[in-house]
Amino acid sequence: MSERFFLAEAPKDGLASLQGDEAQHLTRVLRAHVGDLVTVFDGRGLQWSARVVQIDRKSVSLAVNEPQPMASTTPSRLTLAVALPKGDRQKWMVEKLTELGVGRLIPIATTRGVAEATAGSKARLERGVIEACKQCGRNTLMEIATGHTLAQLLDEMPSGTYGLIAHPGGSPLDRTAMAETTGVIAMVGPEGGFTDDELAAAERAGLTRVSLGPHILRVETAAISLAAHFSISACNPRVV
Amino acid sequence: MSERFFLAEAPKDGLASLQGDEAQHLTRVLRAHVGDLVTVFDGRGLQWSARVVQIDRKSVSLAVNEPQPMASTTPSRLTLAVALPKGDRQKWMVEKLTELGVGRLIPIATTRGVAEATAGSKARLERGVIEACKQCGRNTLMEIATGHTLAQLLDEMPSGTYGLIAHPGGSPLDRTAMAETTGVIAMVGPEGGFTDDELAAAERAGLTRVSLGPHILRVETAAISLAAHFSISACNPRVV
Repeated sequence: MSERFFLAEAPKDGLASLQGDEAQHLTRVLRAHVGDLVTVFDGRGLQWSARVVQIDRKSVSLAVNEPQPMASTTPSRLTLAVALPKGDRQKWMVEKLTELGVGRLIPIATTRGVAEATAGSKARLERGVIEACKQCGRNTLMEIATGHTLAQLLDEMPSGTYGLIAHPGGSPLDRTAMAETTGVIAMVGPEGGFTDDELAAAERAGLTRVSLGPHILRVETAAISLAAHFSISACNPRVV
Repeated sequence: MSERFFLAEAPKDGLASLQGDEAQHLTRVLRAHVGDLVTVFDGRGLQWSARVVQIDRKSVSLAVNEPQPMASTTPSRLTLAVALPKGDRQKWMVEKLTELGVGRLIPIATTRGVAEATAGSKARLERGVIEACKQCGRNTLMEIATGHTLAQLLDEMPSGTYGLIAHPGGSPLDRTAMAETTGVIAMVGPEGGFTDDELAAAERAGLTRVSLGPHILRVETAAISLAAHFSISACNPRVV
């Protein structure tokens, strides 16, 4: 069975357990049997092959082999701070950012934002991250860090970070800055855009206003666009 | 009214007409009245402001002013040849590729492909292009060129084109080639990947096998990723 399953807790003494959605996926959707071989990952960079040893009503017990050597488990240096779009666009964005290797997604509260990141939505976003990791072979979860306003984020910008704020009329992406700093934080505003006050505050905090092309991009398009550019560049020293 | 409307036929003697979905959008959704001011575009690079002069059951007549000067109407040099995903993923991909300025989308028939581009689906894809152009401020439609197999496309590769085929284990994107050629054709395979025969044929035709990062990207993610990279690079000589 080529499917991958997320372990909420690390294996202990060669045993691990799938719970909730993961157990359901394996037993109800894929109709696994005792003895089947699966792949499991812990979301912190490790992956194992494992054999189903017991199937209960709400959990599955697994015998886990040695961790498999992985090509790379370093999380991306890219943090995206995004005024979340609503509904399917939010769900889709999380799937794509996960596939594209973004290290951390910070939903931000902005003046014109339409969707708030509540405890419920954080859980939903994290479930989306796990689903995408299972599918795309990623072994480190994308972190979802909720509870930030734009002002807080600007106050707490780590030094050595290249900060950029996506907005029409900005300058082009600075690939040297993207390549040479210890981290990149890119901010993407809501459908109605950042307000002038928000833009001014970002620029006072040292962020660069960056344009992503000639068209007005939707929130999720801007976020995915930055992630894609960073992902292709990061795996390619000739590009960044 | 800030909304934009697509003109299927160019204005004549200062008059134009909206039909079908466009007329419906203006009268039923936005409840426009005679005298309202709107923006119209022809999908070939021109844009006008126009005033509603008559509203009929299935059409709207407009008095059109002089064309507005546009920043840039050059279509992107990027053609994406993609084994279409199904349903919402297909719809979403077309929206994003349009926002990101892709010049032409060619749905390709491949051995493991899941969705065929029929006459009906071509019309649906083109409607998606128009919707996205209205929203993102793009004035030249992304062309949808159906009826191609991978073999035909490979036979017809124009000279001076940088051709690439996205596949795990390939080399990094060559930004010099992307910047210096007259056009770029990027091929993205179906969920199950290109077959070995397809990859070999592409390489015989001179295409470069390119990897887009460490994870297994969904079809639409790979396509959008290439479009985003090209879009950000094209508007930024320091990046390409």
